[in-house]
Amino acid sequence: MNSVEVCLTHQQLENYQHIDKNVIVIDVLRATSTINTILFYGAKSVKPVESLEECMKLRDKGYIIMAERMGKKVEGFDYGNSPTKIERDLFEEKNVGIATSNGTKAIVKTKGSHITLIGSFLNLSKVIEYLNSNKRDILLVCSGWKGSTNLEDTLCAGAIIAGLENFEYKSDTVIIAKKLYDQSEDDILSNMKKSSHAKRLSGYDNIKDIEFCSQVDTQEVLPYLDNDDIKLL
Amino acid sequence: MNSVEVCLTHQQLENYQHIDKNVIVIDVLRATSTINTILFYGAKSVKPVESLEECMKLRDKGYIIMAERMGKKVEGFDYGNSPTKIERDLFEEKNVGIATSNGTKAIVKTKGSHITLIGSFLNLSKVIEYLNSNKRDILLVCSGWKGSTNLEDTLCAGAIIAGLENFEYKSDTVIIAKKLYDQSEDDILSNMKKSSHAKRLSGYDNIKDIEFCSQVDTQEVLPYLDNDDIKLL
Repeated sequence: MNSVEVCLTHQQLENYQHIDKNVIVIDVLRATSTINTILFYGAKSVKPVESLEECMKLRDKGYIIMAERMGKKVEGFDYGNSPTKIERDLFEEKNVGIATSNGTKAIVKTKGSHITLIGSFLNLSKVIEYLNSNKRDILLVCSGWKGSTNLEDTLCAGAIIAGLENFEYKSDTVIIAKKLYDQSEDDILSNMKKSSHAKRLSGYDNIKDIEFCSQVDTQEVLPYLDNDDIKLL
Repeated sequence: MNSVEVCLTHQQLENYQHIDKNVIVIDVLRATSTINTILFYGAKSVKPVESLEECMKLRDKGYIIMAERMGKKVEGFDYGNSPTKIERDLFEEKNVGIATSNGTKAIVKTKGSHITLIGSFLNLSKVIEYLNSNKRDILLVCSGWKGSTNLEDTLCAGAIIAGLENFEYKSDTVIIAKKLYDQSEDDILSNMKKSSHAKRLSGYDNIKDIEFCSQVDTQEVLPYLDNDDIKLL
């Protein structure tokens, strides 16, 4: 039987084996929700980068450039990390570069996986469908916030686990995430609002983003990391 | 209102502020359960040390010396880390040195706290009673296993949180631990048995330890770190 594990922060990735596994990176608020939205709106590709400098250089190559630090847009970039600010008309057929505090760093670290999928509530069923149809050992990588476990990513990991058929629970974190989801599935939004990052974002007038990112299965897309770029499968 | 936070592994302690707080270290399987048992059985003090060498040196000073690595007793020491192997007659009035894989390391790191208490299911109510009567910000430190979050420590953290009166939940991990406990409190033992460390220990014929450590409020003791030694409050 194939197994499933959950890594609760990307800083803990070294404690897990990700090579040749089906890896899902989760940063519900907001990197993976935003990346999924960009591709759902018709962009050609999204390049996740670690540093602001690297991201800035992509402008000369015709990329839309997006960067966030501490929950806010970085000056000089076209956008921050808000999925509700993505304008469909402007993103169609474009290449996009993005640097965020946690999510893009997590994605970049998972090279060597069999496949790295971009997970969020927005495309939950598409992720689950892939994992059940393409059986391999699974590693769910929650981005977390500055090295600490957060509520929204753990909840989304639990939602994915709840949909899996016939996988062995290999780490205790699988049980923890699943039980969290079992207690919260009736109302994702109100549970999301309890997260400390949601409170942080609310302070920046981003309550719309939290509502947006709490939606389940509004985007039938399956973004994956193709070398250095995220594209639709 | 005072706050409560949970650090899910001792490796993540640097992400949290512990100075001047009421700190509880939790390593249910088995360091904190064992330390509580040693003092409950009448030992004078328990010295938690990080290295085996340091622990071995305590023998010359008349200490009983205990050491565990990878779940097993280390050769040359009097005992490993099993609470069911503690013989009351032999421990009364003795000083004990102990080095374990995760728990004792966690305890040593919390110096600078207002007080560091040793938490487990065995003395759950005594810990909760202290925290409710001596109001300060609280940090619960789960030991985890090799840098990863484990089920039994998170569950015990949740049990403590469930007993707290009027504390603000400062980290998402408080919500996660509390929800895990809410779903598991009816049967601590069967939930403990699902943990990967319990499975690891069962392999070493330590099923008795898991049953022992799942008992709630069998020991009315409140061990705390007094400089370099753990004593009863």
